[in-house]
Amino acid sequence: MEGGEGRGLGCQKTMGGKNDDATNGSNKAVIPSCCLKARASDPEYEAKCHSTVVSGWFSEPQTCPEKTPKLMYFNNPMWPGEAHSLRVEKILFKERSEFQEVLVFQSSSYGKVLALDGIVQLTEKDECAYQEMIAHLPLCSIKLPQNVLVLGGGDGGVLREISRHTSVELIDICEIDKMVIDVSKKFFPQLAVGFDDPRVRLHLGDAAEFLRKAPEGKYDAIIVDSSDPVGPAQELVERPFFETIARALKPGGVLCNMAESMWLHTHLIQDMISICRETFKGSVHYAWTSVPTYPSGVIGFLICSTEGPPVDFLHPINPIEKLEGAVQHQRELKFYNSEIHKAAFALPSFVKRELSL
Amino acid sequence: MEGGEGRGLGCQKTMGGKNDDATNGSNKAVIPSCCLKARASDPEYEAKCHSTVVSGWFSEPQTCPEKTPKLMYFNNPMWPGEAHSLRVEKILFKERSEFQEVLVFQSSSYGKVLALDGIVQLTEKDECAYQEMIAHLPLCSIKLPQNVLVLGGGDGGVLREISRHTSVELIDICEIDKMVIDVSKKFFPQLAVGFDDPRVRLHLGDAAEFLRKAPEGKYDAIIVDSSDPVGPAQELVERPFFETIARALKPGGVLCNMAESMWLHTHLIQDMISICRETFKGSVHYAWTSVPTYPSGVIGFLICSTEGPPVDFLHPINPIEKLEGAVQHQRELKFYNSEIHKAAFALPSFVKRELSL
Repeated sequence: MEGGEGRGLGCQKTMGGKNDDATNGSNKAVIPSCCLKARASDPEYEAKCHSTVVSGWFSEPQTCPEKTPKLMYFNNPMWPGEAHSLRVEKILFKERSEFQEVLVFQSSSYGKVLALDGIVQLTEKDECAYQEMIAHLPLCSIKLPQNVLVLGGGDGGVLREISRHTSVELIDICEIDKMVIDVSKKFFPQLAVGFDDPRVRLHLGDAAEFLRKAPEGKYDAIIVDSSDPVGPAQELVERPFFETIARALKPGGVLCNMAESMWLHTHLIQDMISICRETFKGSVHYAWTSVPTYPSGVIGFLICSTEGPPVDFLHPINPIEKLEGAVQHQRELKFYNSEIHKAAFALPSFVKRELSL
Repeated sequence: MEGGEGRGLGCQKTMGGKNDDATNGSNKAVIPSCCLKARASDPEYEAKCHSTVVSGWFSEPQTCPEKTPKLMYFNNPMWPGEAHSLRVEKILFKERSEFQEVLVFQSSSYGKVLALDGIVQLTEKDECAYQEMIAHLPLCSIKLPQNVLVLGGGDGGVLREISRHTSVELIDICEIDKMVIDVSKKFFPQLAVGFDDPRVRLHLGDAAEFLRKAPEGKYDAIIVDSSDPVGPAQELVERPFFETIARALKPGGVLCNMAESMWLHTHLIQDMISICRETFKGSVHYAWTSVPTYPSGVIGFLICSTEGPPVDFLHPINPIEKLEGAVQHQRELKFYNSEIHKAAFALPSFVKRELSL
């Protein structure tokens, strides 16, 4: 899992078996199978894993004993050997839902932060990048989308973005954890405003279950705005799930799926792409963008179309600048534009090679 | 300096006065002027600054007392409220040169790391992104570059990349700190190999001084591969410096200058762009790319051309894939390609607005 020059760019696989629960205190993080193999061969591995803090508190070293601001320190077996820390002004919320630990805090330099099971989901400062890209990469690639499904996305940010598209008539959202929605409404109103759109229908429950019951060919676009594939979202990177997505899409419909980091997770991305190449008969692409508070500072998107009218993702047929009122709806677009849309599909050479793209 | 939703995207100015030295232990970090103003108005500011560790050691919390791996924890007044940490396998080198503290360590997941005055300059895992982009963005934008000047770049990585261009006859490099070169030759041979190219002429000394003595119109391209604008590199963001660069370039010559982070430093970038718009009569652009171990996970490039034959940076006239032997020279390109070149100029909407681009 840990890279260096001799091992290329250090691809780290994160898909693990289900219920392989290496519970660490208050956290439900699962150790992926590749980490398990490393553990079997490395007598010091247990100690290394246990000595890392997964979503924990610690104080900075006491250079000024009378003042010790606290940091939230984010590390995880999915990105070993590194961590990002954010200075905490105040903890605003910290509770365990039925599914995960939900944490909200005011940071010094990224605004309010939402973390689930010790992993940053969004910050006020940089959420615009993720929310705008995951919504508009698919929706600006097809003409007049009508029915859109969001899986996950309980913070409401993606709903806010989908709302810019006046052609959309129905926005179904299936979120498993009501606490995420409630917390967002309380602490992140600029994302939760997405729930105010009258076209939104909220379904509380399991995404895979919802999809199995969805009518065939119902949706123009499905957006999978999930957390990382451990815990509640681990089913959302497996073949049956992608097959039910493809079934629920119209011909020439599009999927946009959160797809990890090209610096850290190319094995996982490769697996997802392989499954999607067999499942989505239109096209399969990978795109990426900058999100400073995600591990390695980037996030990727798996973007696919079903068989039917061809979809040219690289040259958006439905540019947001030409949709009346779209750029300014609710709040002006901060990140996405048609140039950034096209640019997102340009991959570094090592990524093209590793993903055979 | 510290952002949040109410303050837009949290631009942080980093240009400070010279010799404003708030020395913190073994570190020569200078507090930029904006931080000084904040300090004057915030009685707790001193405590906050002093309580952060600038390039320091600390051990992770002792969840496993018998095993406490160490982390190198990087934070800095130039990016307040956050830090990136890398797990350390072994310290390989740690000495103070005439100019700065030079640190090399073996990290667990990013290979070997070079830090100067507590700021990561490069890691083996992701150096490809920075070195390849800063070299090929300018060199692939002009036909048959002959004379190239590198300011800074003592690790040799940019030289390695320039060497791919067979049209180049002369590569002048002016580096102020010999220790950086020696350390790179010892610990980063895959970058220092750049010094082996017979076209390279090394000049040890001050970059601004070197430029003042350079013949007018000598260079096709000048690449400023500097550290951040505090310490030895602080002169390298000021007007006289850009004026001497423009003077040393041929008509239709190009500058490519390291230019910070679009998430953190738009004020500094604005200042640089304003100066360059008055100094470079051809064109002025800003580009960016992903480098996980730089603050906020991105680095930007200021790219300018002098008056003369027009340079179209967005459509490289000298694509690397068409230069015989270039992609494979010494080691295969890992990051840069013509698609990524064009994509680098696509800016998020907030950046376009803040930089008036």
